[in-house]
Amino acid sequence: MRFCRFGEGRLGLVEGSTVRDVTGALEAIPHRYTYPLPTHDLLIANLNQVAERARALRDTAPPLPVDGLTLLSPVANPGKIIAAPVNYKKHAQEVRENPALHNNNPALLQSINTIGLFLKATSSLAGPGEGIHLRKLDRRNDHEVELAFVIGKTGNNIPAREAMEYVAGYAIGLDITIRGSEDRSFRKSPDSYSILGPWLVTADEIPNPGELDLSITVNGEVRQKSNTNNMILGVAELIEFASSFYTLHPGDIFMTGTPEGVSQIAPGDVIVATVEKIGTMRVQVRAAEMASAAS
Amino acid sequence: MRFCRFGEGRLGLVEGSTVRDVTGALEAIPHRYTYPLPTHDLLIANLNQVAERARALRDTAPPLPVDGLTLLSPVANPGKIIAAPVNYKKHAQEVRENPALHNNNPALLQSINTIGLFLKATSSLAGPGEGIHLRKLDRRNDHEVELAFVIGKTGNNIPAREAMEYVAGYAIGLDITIRGSEDRSFRKSPDSYSILGPWLVTADEIPNPGELDLSITVNGEVRQKSNTNNMILGVAELIEFASSFYTLHPGDIFMTGTPEGVSQIAPGDVIVATVEKIGTMRVQVRAAEMASAAS
Repeated sequence: MRFCRFGEGRLGLVEGSTVRDVTGALEAIPHRYTYPLPTHDLLIANLNQVAERARALRDTAPPLPVDGLTLLSPVANPGKIIAAPVNYKKHAQEVRENPALHNNNPALLQSINTIGLFLKATSSLAGPGEGIHLRKLDRRNDHEVELAFVIGKTGNNIPAREAMEYVAGYAIGLDITIRGSEDRSFRKSPDSYSILGPWLVTADEIPNPGELDLSITVNGEVRQKSNTNNMILGVAELIEFASSFYTLHPGDIFMTGTPEGVSQIAPGDVIVATVEKIGTMRVQVRAAEMASAAS
Repeated sequence: MRFCRFGEGRLGLVEGSTVRDVTGALEAIPHRYTYPLPTHDLLIANLNQVAERARALRDTAPPLPVDGLTLLSPVANPGKIIAAPVNYKKHAQEVRENPALHNNNPALLQSINTIGLFLKATSSLAGPGEGIHLRKLDRRNDHEVELAFVIGKTGNNIPAREAMEYVAGYAIGLDITIRGSEDRSFRKSPDSYSILGPWLVTADEIPNPGELDLSITVNGEVRQKSNTNNMILGVAELIEFASSFYTLHPGDIFMTGTPEGVSQIAPGDVIVATVEKIGTMRVQVRAAEMASAAS
């Protein structure tokens, strides 16, 4: 099944180019909550119950054309956004060869096994319909298209052979990046620099995430085009690696790394990203409104 | 005022060595919430209303000795934990001089203005009463004592001159660290590696956070002892720097960096950390239970 979130927090079941509004299925999430709130995503933690309710509602749910909807991130309340640096060999090579990408920082030239994973701020998460709002326009801002996946249940020290049981589903991720000397978790975390969409495809529809074409165009020109079979660490290995350091919770998002071809984007650009078996999403690039705190 | 959280999510008003149980004041937080949940901390966002209710409840609230309580993090639902690397000159110097700390990584020898800030996973947050649960015991695990502060209201591009208006209060932070080659946001993010406590001291009680003694002992031996007047970037400058990259929200936690004297800790150790005008907290160090995912 394919679940999207759209508009003012509505839930949709995606069927081709049509979305059925099954917002009523969110009633399957059991409680109303008071402080302190749960620290994981409630839709993902209750995905089976929501899916069952959505199937029951489907036939009477009004069909909407997907093109008219403002698509939100399919995960609203992730505890962590975990990202994989240099997880494609040819991207590692292009980083090594281009000072604008490695910034003369030898730490950016090491392998993912040495560097480990990094975090992006959950406040950086947005849906494709909300667009990318670029900051630091005097510096290089790049697109990075990635296969993203979402953790479905709590786990710790998960061996790779059991890891796929922990995947709730897949989506397309954009890991937008300001190049420079700062820590990755800083310069990749401005608001809207983590795009997740266009929807969540449940794990049963993608038995092998290690064999998916992915690509991105900017203003119609192909910039990145690869296949997830070029990843250094696959989905199961990333789960094993991450959970050897910290507990994973329902709704934690992984961005699995980007292939070669990263390049600069600017306000006015239109990005179209595609991952096989997931779909295609269109994302508008704008300049962030630099309203001061006082306004 | 000094607010602690303890036991099963109870709220306390700290008065010397006594805590008044004012859990009823949490009713000042207006709503019950359904999915999608707010992404900021509701106690901090409603701190003035909760404080007013707590004052009204205080006289009839049962007094409890603070020593008998299991203290939790005073912030339950932070959106971000933002940390400052090498923000004390003498700590920068000890990192430069000790390969075990810089790991031959030149990026660890740069200034905070170059490195920027980094994120810790919100799933790493724990209170002093919950203790530190060490992982990767074959590697060096270090204590780092820090002044921590909590953002009180949403802000973006906040100039330093206005920044202090955004501080809800202060606490002691422990930024527990596995040394090694991985990204800071990975090796500093295991569960319980961010300790916040013993309580939140509201900002009105600490007009100048840039002049506070801080220290830490391990098994009674002083390991770090400094004053926040040795910080390179102060509280206001850290807020300006961070909010030039991303929006700050109520409950976002800053750990302002550690002075010289970082050293190894091991299961069985007892840490006592003190920051002037905040208080003292005792934290037990244990080995993490390495239960597998399947158990």
